[in-house]
Amino acid sequence: MDANVVLNTANTIKVLTMDAVEAATCGHPGMPMGMSTAAAVLWGEVLKFDPAAPNWPDRDRFVLSAGHGSMLLYSLLHLAGSTELTMDELKRFRQWGARTAGHPEFGEAGGIETTTGPLGQGFANAVGMALAERLMAGRVNDGDTTLIDHFTYAIAGDGCLMEGVANEAASLAGHLGLGKLVVLYDDNGITIDGTTAIAFTEDVPARFRALGWRTETVDGHDAGAVFGALQRARAAGAAGGQEPTLISCKTHIGHGSPAKQDTSDAHGSRLGSAEVAATKRAIGMPESETFTVHPDARAYLEAAAARGAAARRDWESRVMAAPEGVRNALSRQLDTEIPAALFEALPRTAVGKGVATRKASGQVLNALADKLPQLLGGSADLAGSNNTDLDAYEDVARGAFGARARNLRYGVREHAMAAVMNGLSLHGGFRPYGGTFLVFSDYMRGAMRLSAIMHQPVVYVLTHDSVFLGEDGPTHQPVEHAMSLRLIPNLWVVRPADANETIAAWQLALERKTGPTALLLTRQNVPAVDASNDGVLRGGYVLRREEGAAPTVTLIATGSEVALAMATADLLGPGTRVVSLPCWEAFAAQTPDYRKSVIGRGPRVAIEAGRSLGWERWVGEDGLVVGIDRFGASAPAERLASEFGFTPAQVAARVRGWLG
Amino acid sequence: MDANVVLNTANTIKVLTMDAVEAATCGHPGMPMGMSTAAAVLWGEVLKFDPAAPNWPDRDRFVLSAGHGSMLLYSLLHLAGSTELTMDELKRFRQWGARTAGHPEFGEAGGIETTTGPLGQGFANAVGMALAERLMAGRVNDGDTTLIDHFTYAIAGDGCLMEGVANEAASLAGHLGLGKLVVLYDDNGITIDGTTAIAFTEDVPARFRALGWRTETVDGHDAGAVFGALQRARAAGAAGGQEPTLISCKTHIGHGSPAKQDTSDAHGSRLGSAEVAATKRAIGMPESETFTVHPDARAYLEAAAARGAAARRDWESRVMAAPEGVRNALSRQLDTEIPAALFEALPRTAVGKGVATRKASGQVLNALADKLPQLLGGSADLAGSNNTDLDAYEDVARGAFGARARNLRYGVREHAMAAVMNGLSLHGGFRPYGGTFLVFSDYMRGAMRLSAIMHQPVVYVLTHDSVFLGEDGPTHQPVEHAMSLRLIPNLWVVRPADANETIAAWQLALERKTGPTALLLTRQNVPAVDASNDGVLRGGYVLRREEGAAPTVTLIATGSEVALAMATADLLGPGTRVVSLPCWEAFAAQTPDYRKSVIGRGPRVAIEAGRSLGWERWVGEDGLVVGIDRFGASAPAERLASEFGFTPAQVAARVRGWLG
Repeated sequence: MDANVVLNTANTIKVLTMDAVEAATCGHPGMPMGMSTAAAVLWGEVLKFDPAAPNWPDRDRFVLSAGHGSMLLYSLLHLAGSTELTMDELKRFRQWGARTAGHPEFGEAGGIETTTGPLGQGFANAVGMALAERLMAGRVNDGDTTLIDHFTYAIAGDGCLMEGVANEAASLAGHLGLGKLVVLYDDNGITIDGTTAIAFTEDVPARFRALGWRTETVDGHDAGAVFGALQRARAAGAAGGQEPTLISCKTHIGHGSPAKQDTSDAHGSRLGSAEVAATKRAIGMPESETFTVHPDARAYLEAAAARGAAARRDWESRVMAAPEGVRNALSRQLDTEIPAALFEALPRTAVGKGVATRKASGQVLNALADKLPQLLGGSADLAGSNNTDLDAYEDVARGAFGARARNLRYGVREHAMAAVMNGLSLHGGFRPYGGTFLVFSDYMRGAMRLSAIMHQPVVYVLTHDSVFLGEDGPTHQPVEHAMSLRLIPNLWVVRPADANETIAAWQLALERKTGPTALLLTRQNVPAVDASNDGVLRGGYVLRREEGAAPTVTLIATGSEVALAMATADLLGPGTRVVSLPCWEAFAAQTPDYRKSVIGRGPRVAIEAGRSLGWERWVGEDGLVVGIDRFGASAPAERLASEFGFTPAQVAARVRGWLG
Repeated sequence: MDANVVLNTANTIKVLTMDAVEAATCGHPGMPMGMSTAAAVLWGEVLKFDPAAPNWPDRDRFVLSAGHGSMLLYSLLHLAGSTELTMDELKRFRQWGARTAGHPEFGEAGGIETTTGPLGQGFANAVGMALAERLMAGRVNDGDTTLIDHFTYAIAGDGCLMEGVANEAASLAGHLGLGKLVVLYDDNGITIDGTTAIAFTEDVPARFRALGWRTETVDGHDAGAVFGALQRARAAGAAGGQEPTLISCKTHIGHGSPAKQDTSDAHGSRLGSAEVAATKRAIGMPESETFTVHPDARAYLEAAAARGAAARRDWESRVMAAPEGVRNALSRQLDTEIPAALFEALPRTAVGKGVATRKASGQVLNALADKLPQLLGGSADLAGSNNTDLDAYEDVARGAFGARARNLRYGVREHAMAAVMNGLSLHGGFRPYGGTFLVFSDYMRGAMRLSAIMHQPVVYVLTHDSVFLGEDGPTHQPVEHAMSLRLIPNLWVVRPADANETIAAWQLALERKTGPTALLLTRQNVPAVDASNDGVLRGGYVLRREEGAAPTVTLIATGSEVALAMATADLLGPGTRVVSLPCWEAFAAQTPDYRKSVIGRGPRVAIEAGRSLGWERWVGEDGLVVGIDRFGASAPAERLASEFGFTPAQVAARVRGWLG
């Protein structure tokens, strides 16, 4: 390692960052400047990557968890030869249509491994990626053939490490022994509101040691020290060491800025042209130019990229030369096609038979498990309740990452579960699903939103989906959750009516490639209806058609309330239509004619054990919504049904009164 | 301490728990049985409480963070003489209308200090209560007069300590030096899915030491050991020690059950009548009876309650004898009345003048600060952006809890902030508010829901309330959040249009006594409109009245889109009505006639920079919603406005096209 080359690279990162932020008139210069040396060493000496093939499966992963420092990542990728992050793009930092968004957005350019910005998420994504590496290695590598062997690196700041989601994920990483995860902690002592002394005085390395990590502390501006720490971390991980590594890099935010270094001013505001000039002068970069790239910088990272390209070509050769079994294992994991025939082959439940949809969901999963090795599930300590276990398979555990290890034990860590699933999905090779109670989707909403932003087909298995879970009471009873999940763009919410709709719900979820799906499942038994697979895939359909030219009333329901609607229709008479509407997003994607043919324009009643707000979309402002607009209560489900007006007789009476 | 008495008390708790769970046919017996000894010692020897005056301000606080073990709390309160938690109530465990809900519900009975069940929340509430104690002491006590001097105790399980929110709160408690907080950790090695070995192998005490806590580990079934640890914790706290204490109690879940002790079966299921009988036999309680109370148990906890009552009476005498200044300080803090005149006196902004509502919010807060010492604010490391600082006051910090300390530095810990605010509010003496970006309400939704369930008037200051925050991009731009917060029952969401509506928004929030309020505030300047205070308090009003008998079209908007609606109305002509609808919940509480007089039944258009789903309630299914149904983008706000169709000309054109 040539210290001068690293210095010139770091200085180039500083200049690109300062100038891009000036051009945008806003942004976060402090972190990229402070971490410029450490990042240059990581990318120049260590990281295995190839900008020309950014999705090569065995590359190292790099996550900028402190996403506000996006110019650090953009600068590195640009210098390494990214054809997407051109100089023109750097100059369009934070502008409409640019690949260089304020925070790194997955999908904008190869090398942006995940969308970061909401603090702590990237850290947890990195844990998921490191876990995916171990699991892929356990499935693919065989004997002397090693096709999966890479590290996951992340840069996290004080903010990331204050967030609970990061602690959850760190505890899980230590527990699982993810020794090839290396986090560089940008320990600059500054947050937005001032020094960390005002809010964050814990002993971070000691915490991480308690979580099962190895830790080092180095001067983040000392290239040799950073390199040494990285080498030791890599040696430990390569030797099979099971402790992830946290390298605390003592840094100065806004490093090099004479007036703003070590101030929170440097965090999230432009330095200003005078200070930019002063900084360039201080670090020996040309003051009169903007976006100056020192030749060393490009050469350094292009050389690293060339090493990466060579490693990639070597890997491709090794894939070609690998035994057929290994090649097959690799391609099976990476296969993203889900044959529809898998679902058609599943046994259906007889109409009238009572099965909880959570149980039906577990049956689907277990029936698919052998055929879809990509499926990888878990639960936040509710596996038995969420029915997420693949019964013929074993737990993923420290040192147990082989093909039989399919059940993840996330612990009571919902938020980390969701963010780790994002990491598993982003890594490739897995279709992750994870379970908890629907009400606790509140705990992981931050990560669910990122599944949706990043178009990751993660499946959320959310059971105990209404007050009808019963005695656990209001803290466990979702009321607002179905509707509030429907509000997240690109998240599809499916609330199947019965065991048969649950099969189609899983089909819908697994056939999605461009976003996450939430399955809302009952705790209690619900009688099977004469469900239409196609109808579920379309999001909604007429389950019971009226007699006569037009329905006297149309009852629209989801989930457990579909059976209630059917029983209510029996009371209301043959003119009643019943619509099952398990997935609003799929239904909205149908033609207006189809939608109209299902719900019509006549008198409509919605029945769902949740907030009524939102149902006006389907029943109109004069429609009747039989919902629950208060928190629940602790009591047996049958009692709750009668207290909340959810018996067939009560609903029928309300509908009759409303029809007048 | 008489070990036999403690044993008989613990055995009584076990019996009451087992029998209540059997009667309900469901519940969580394992934890109350495992912690019965430790809890008996805490309540019998240490806790300062008076069931006859459960809200006495200087009582010790007890939080059952592991809320599923609710029968532990109900048993203790019953034995101590609670007139609300009668034997009849214990027998109605988990039944409709009972005070003995599946999880402890605040408000059901005195002594239930907070609603718990969602794991980790109670732990963080306890941190808030312990912080409130220090802050109240700093405001009230003076010289030799000490009216506020109590401890906060919590029982937390493995699940609580896995949750990120608990780590955030623990880090904050260590940072702030809350030495009078004592957490008993029920270290039973079992979670729902099995042993903690499958998911939770970190060194918990070492983590807490890293967070600045003192720790001890004891046998949780050894009354003397637990008592000793409690005494040492109390001595340290009473001597001014600043480290909170974590006492790890090594326990056996389901302790005493011959077949189910130490199994996850004991966690969340009834033991079954045979095993209940076997357990009673094993612990020497009458097998043929149910709900047996050993005389020692009642005597032990009634004696403790009598000590508490004496302490309470002594406290009341000391209040009477205290200097007037101290008494005044106490009553000022405890005063919950907010005079409307405070808001009427605030200066109004001239129509047309541009002010960001977040800035207007900061001005309101600063104007009220001297007059409302109960107001206690903070931010999750965004004080400057959220405008939450009281400029004339100082930071709350370790050892700095006096009347000048009004600004809380929560760090980047949104979830703990919300849960700590719940604790501050539950403790009494404070009207807490806390700020972050609206998008990060996702991180604290679990705790916000509990504010609403518990009817706590916490104020959430949520700034940067739309895509118009600009360049930070989609991860920071709320789209679904306004509507998804409106879905939480009893949470009032106010999105004021300008600086003047912001005054009324704060009035609305602070006059609420029965639930939380979320204020959604702009980053960007918005021109002041001719706002009606009364109209805001009613949730919505006609801001611009049409010419003619009826409006040709009514534009309904909130927040920053109200000015857009006004500009659009200028283009559409004098027949246009403009309605500002800042608070749907307040509007829904008006008479149907008032609502109809505001929004009418004619052609209506909603304009809000967020999801359109839900607006059908006010504009009808054929109404036009100018919303944003995708994630945002990184670009300057003006560009986003034109790309998303939010300029007056674009909206006017859409409205004209829609009117046809």
